[in-house]
Amino acid sequence: MREFLIIGSKARTEKFSLNDLPGAGRIDILCRCVSSAFFLSHDIRRDVNVYLLLLGPPDPPKVLKIVGKEVKYMPPDERGIAGLIRKALEIKADKNWKKSTPGIYVAKKGLEELLDEVASDVYYLREDGEDIRKLKDNNALFVLGDHEGVPEELEEIVLRKAKKIIGIPTKSLMAEHCITIVHYELDRKQLNS
Amino acid sequence: MREFLIIGSKARTEKFSLNDLPGAGRIDILCRCVSSAFFLSHDIRRDVNVYLLLLGPPDPPKVLKIVGKEVKYMPPDERGIAGLIRKALEIKADKNWKKSTPGIYVAKKGLEELLDEVASDVYYLREDGEDIRKLKDNNALFVLGDHEGVPEELEEIVLRKAKKIIGIPTKSLMAEHCITIVHYELDRKQLNS
Ligand SMILES: C[S@@+](CC[C@H](N)C(=O)[O-])C[C@H]1O[C@@H](n2cnc3c(N)ncnc32)[C@H](O)[C@@H]1O
Ligand SMILES: C[S@@+](CC[C@H](N)C(=O)[O-])C[C@H]1O[C@@H](n2cnc3c(N)ncnc32)[C@H](O)[C@@H]1O
Repeated sequence: MREFLIIGSKARTEKFSLNDLPGAGRIDILCRCVSSAFFLSHDIRRDVNVYLLLLGPPDPPKVLKIVGKEVKYMPPDERGIAGLIRKALEIKADKNWKKSTPGIYVAKKGLEELLDEVASDVYYLREDGEDIRKLKDNNALFVLGDHEGVPEELEEIVLRKAKKIIGIPTKSLMAEHCITIVHYELDRKQLNS
Repeated sequence: MREFLIIGSKARTEKFSLNDLPGAGRIDILCRCVSSAFFLSHDIRRDVNVYLLLLGPPDPPKVLKIVGKEVKYMPPDERGIAGLIRKALEIKADKNWKKSTPGIYVAKKGLEELLDEVASDVYYLREDGEDIRKLKDNNALFVLGDHEGVPEELEEIVLRKAKKIIGIPTKSLMAEHCITIVHYELDRKQLNS
């Protein structure tokens, strides 16, 4: 099971316009991360979960959980994914996971609570981390920041929970491209094992 | 110089709605390919060109050329990129490259003519090709298909021009994820050279 937690430091926590996803606190980045995390050529990775931590106004924090085993009718394009996110944000969220469309849940949870809940080992993806190519662990949760990276006070929490900081030693990349590369390296390991 | 040519077998060749990019012959895929080809965390890859071959109605073929060295004001989100594509499609295209917004050109050229024009070696990206990890060539043009792959009659042209078929041996992936992986493997080579 591979899990990805993307921290949307500015992402809106209520209805937003599908015509301006960047303007909704860079929801476009979160949508591309969902697309990278789940989509294969003609299939969806069922062994993947994604957590979108929304910390923007008006009602932070909110978390969306997308469960690969259960998700249905999710398209790979940003607007289509944003529509599912927006639908989930219409729900009156509280501490408990509430189901929106198939495989998508919403709750009011902060980062620490969320990381405590997760079963797999936590890895923090940051440019200066240990080379991703050394990672063996196919059951892991990867934490990524958005366009501004992970805010300091949240990074402290991540560093407390993370088993290791993992890096892609080539360049500073968009979060969604890091997700594609993590899948690729882990798929390579499974190929050879 | 790395170049990517994506064959949009159904992509519309005139104005389309920004509210339904998948419905415009899967223009959403082409937009994500542009995003993967050019965008780094806070930068654009200036050593990259992208060619979008649009073969859908009403006026195929049309090609959009996006030149990394010249492009300006291009956002990484699908709708933003689609807006630039749509602007270029407003131009009355003919055999010669006509400039639209900075770094974006449009012309009426078929696949064969386009491949003849290109300086670098041509590689065809297909699931069963030789392992991408063996590729040394940092000056190359990679040909990819869209959601349906490359149509047969066009594949023949590609196979005639291509130096080699290159494959990512893990899974059948979305075109935009292949572009991310090609960059990653070539960036790795440059890291070690
Ligand atoms: C656009 S980058 C953030 C850019 C930059 N770190 C900053 O603070 O603005 C988004 C996220 O992708 C991940 N990331 C980007 N490049 C990476 C690399 N080379 N290795 C590991 N993670 C990376 C990190 O989690 C980062 O927070
Ligand atoms: C969605 S795939 C096409 C899927 C499938 N080949 C078909 O015919 O429907 C889009 C394009 O990505 C490229 N591609 C996908 N997976 C690949 C892999 N594992 N290795 C190399 N290229 C790949 C190919 O160029 C393909 O035409």
